Amino acid sequence: MNNRVYNFSAGPGVIFEDVLKKAADEMMNQNGSGMSVMEMSHRSKWFEDIINGAEALLREVMAIPDNYKVLFLQGGASSQFAMIPMNLKKNGKADYIQTGVWAKKSYQEAKKFIDCRVVASSEDKTYTYIPETKPEDFNKDADYVHFCYNNTIYGTKFNGEPDVGGIDLVCDMSSCILSEPVDVSKYALIYAGAQKNMGPAGLTVVIIREDLIREDVEPYVPVMFRYKTHADNGSMYNTPPTYAIYICKLVLEKVKELGGLEAMKKINEQKAAMLYDFLDSSKLFRPTVSAPYRSLMNIPFVTGDKELDAKFIKEATEAGFVNLKGHRSVGGMRASLYNAMPVEGVAALVGFMKDFERKNA
Amino acid sequence: MNNRVYNFSAGPGVIFEDVLKKAADEMMNQNGSGMSVMEMSHRSKWFEDIINGAEALLREVMAIPDNYKVLFLQGGASSQFAMIPMNLKKNGKADYIQTGVWAKKSYQEAKKFIDCRVVASSEDKTYTYIPETKPEDFNKDADYVHFCYNNTIYGTKFNGEPDVGGIDLVCDMSSCILSEPVDVSKYALIYAGAQKNMGPAGLTVVIIREDLIREDVEPYVPVMFRYKTHADNGSMYNTPPTYAIYICKLVLEKVKELGGLEAMKKINEQKAAMLYDFLDSSKLFRPTVSAPYRSLMNIPFVTGDKELDAKFIKEATEAGFVNLKGHRSVGGMRASLYNAMPVEGVAALVGFMKDFERKNA
Repeated sequence: MNNRVYNFSAGPGVIFEDVLKKAADEMMNQNGSGMSVMEMSHRSKWFEDIINGAEALLREVMAIPDNYKVLFLQGGASSQFAMIPMNLKKNGKADYIQTGVWAKKSYQEAKKFIDCRVVASSEDKTYTYIPETKPEDFNKDADYVHFCYNNTIYGTKFNGEPDVGGIDLVCDMSSCILSEPVDVSKYALIYAGAQKNMGPAGLTVVIIREDLIREDVEPYVPVMFRYKTHADNGSMYNTPPTYAIYICKLVLEKVKELGGLEAMKKINEQKAAMLYDFLDSSKLFRPTVSAPYRSLMNIPFVTGDKELDAKFIKEATEAGFVNLKGHRSVGGMRASLYNAMPVEGVAALVGFMKDFERKNA
Repeated sequence: MNNRVYNFSAGPGVIFEDVLKKAADEMMNQNGSGMSVMEMSHRSKWFEDIINGAEALLREVMAIPDNYKVLFLQGGASSQFAMIPMNLKKNGKADYIQTGVWAKKSYQEAKKFIDCRVVASSEDKTYTYIPETKPEDFNKDADYVHFCYNNTIYGTKFNGEPDVGGIDLVCDMSSCILSEPVDVSKYALIYAGAQKNMGPAGLTVVIIREDLIREDVEPYVPVMFRYKTHADNGSMYNTPPTYAIYICKLVLEKVKELGGLEAMKKINEQKAAMLYDFLDSSKLFRPTVSAPYRSLMNIPFVTGDKELDAKFIKEATEAGFVNLKGHRSVGGMRASLYNAMPVEGVAALVGFMKDFERKNA
């Protein structure tokens, strides 16, 4: 329909067609306002309904407890890499689990602001697994433990939160938020760039336990990098990314309509199983991650032959399966199956891969 | 058409109807890609064309010299308030001209990072004028002088750059960029939140002379707050606000089609004159700013009677002239006449005001 492709981009990624259609329909005149959402004053009643609606939906869908604030910010996860140590620093120590390039970047940035330490890493095997940790591995004095739930580039994910013995847990959920239920109360802070499962790039969502929103941060922390600035002003200290928040609200409406995060988990497990099952049985393709660590969202695979990989990507693109090229640090292919990728898209991809396998065996 | 209102919002503000229509038309499938721009990987050829196109158009329309970088950032002008001193600090001193609430906020934030000084202020008269300065007022050792070209809340503007005797000039052009030609070579750095004359909220454009992009900033400066990070990576160190950049490109195409900044200046002067001429001759309404300091973009006015102001705003809103309520610190009304406000919109507003005057004399 509309000559749409199946878009397996790792992010910015596919968005529900219903959301895009609604956004197109409302572009000239949203909800009788006579304006596009893009043209609305962020202080208007019209936009207040949008941002409050988005927050209420996120709270409902993720079952966020009342003692957590939801912040709609800018600057991506990369800004959180600094904001987290800047704002959560108390004892001045933090522990990091390093499971990918982004997890490493978060640690490298944090080092500027807090005495931090890599407790476990899977860098030795190109981040193809999740390292095991025990509660006693972590520093009891650490202000927090940071980990990245789903590693977009490598296609690995944690199976539940690591047991860190009660230390405050901080998590980058950029590429898996809204993909399955999460017990928010186990976290001190959850953050996610919106551009994978929540909406357009340029919006970062932070869910933070209220007691961590502190006034007494170091004086060099910019006002825009203080959680308190945004918490005290309902994410409107300055003009928020209004249109991105609107799209996020539409995405959340769609997730709710589909049955919420339990339903998303089932669909996502079904989609991932379709591809992994084929990969595990294929004579041409193989997955790069072994079963216990496999992501539901990002599935890297290779043929083992660079020329064949390139041929596959070229032919797949021509057939309307786009953005399948793997990250340069892994090579091969990667199919990202975010919430908005329909089951039919994965079925069609597997069909195409079977065909390709037959022709290139 | 489409039951659109005339939107006089101070920001986010009105966007060209042609831009919104094109965005709606391309929402499901941009330029044969089979995707919305929102769904495109920022590393894709598709999006590269968009960001490079936006930069080329901005360079052409503003005649930006080759020794300046154009950066597409997030975080609004409020983030620039910190980034500027963090990155431009060398001697450790800066001078500020204080012509409004935002100019004051920029100074207050800068104080955290640099020894800075208010050289001139119009706070004594609720920022209703632009204070005069002489070159010798400024500190020869200052790393820069900061001013805000157009003051959105108060409706004042500078008439040309202040003569600061050759010190690097830094300017917040959030509410007047693209409204008239500017000699970029007179500036060290120009910044603007996009949500008034360039596109949606969530995009901040920085135009910076290359020699000011330094590596040797203080260690506490977050990687996302270093201009070098963004300059070295073509504004793609992390995922940029892709959709906002796309809309900005469409806006720039429209500005070029209308004849560029010389043409915009003529149209803007015409629109502003229509409203100021009426205000100067009206027996009911009066402008709050005297002639030498008047903004082309934001025109505050009052009746002198709060109840009558409220009645006017209510009736105007009902008639489809929306967002005319003045900022709480000025009161009364404010009509923002950004580039995308058509001449007919101002003519219709003046017609409505004349009617209102007749009925309420």
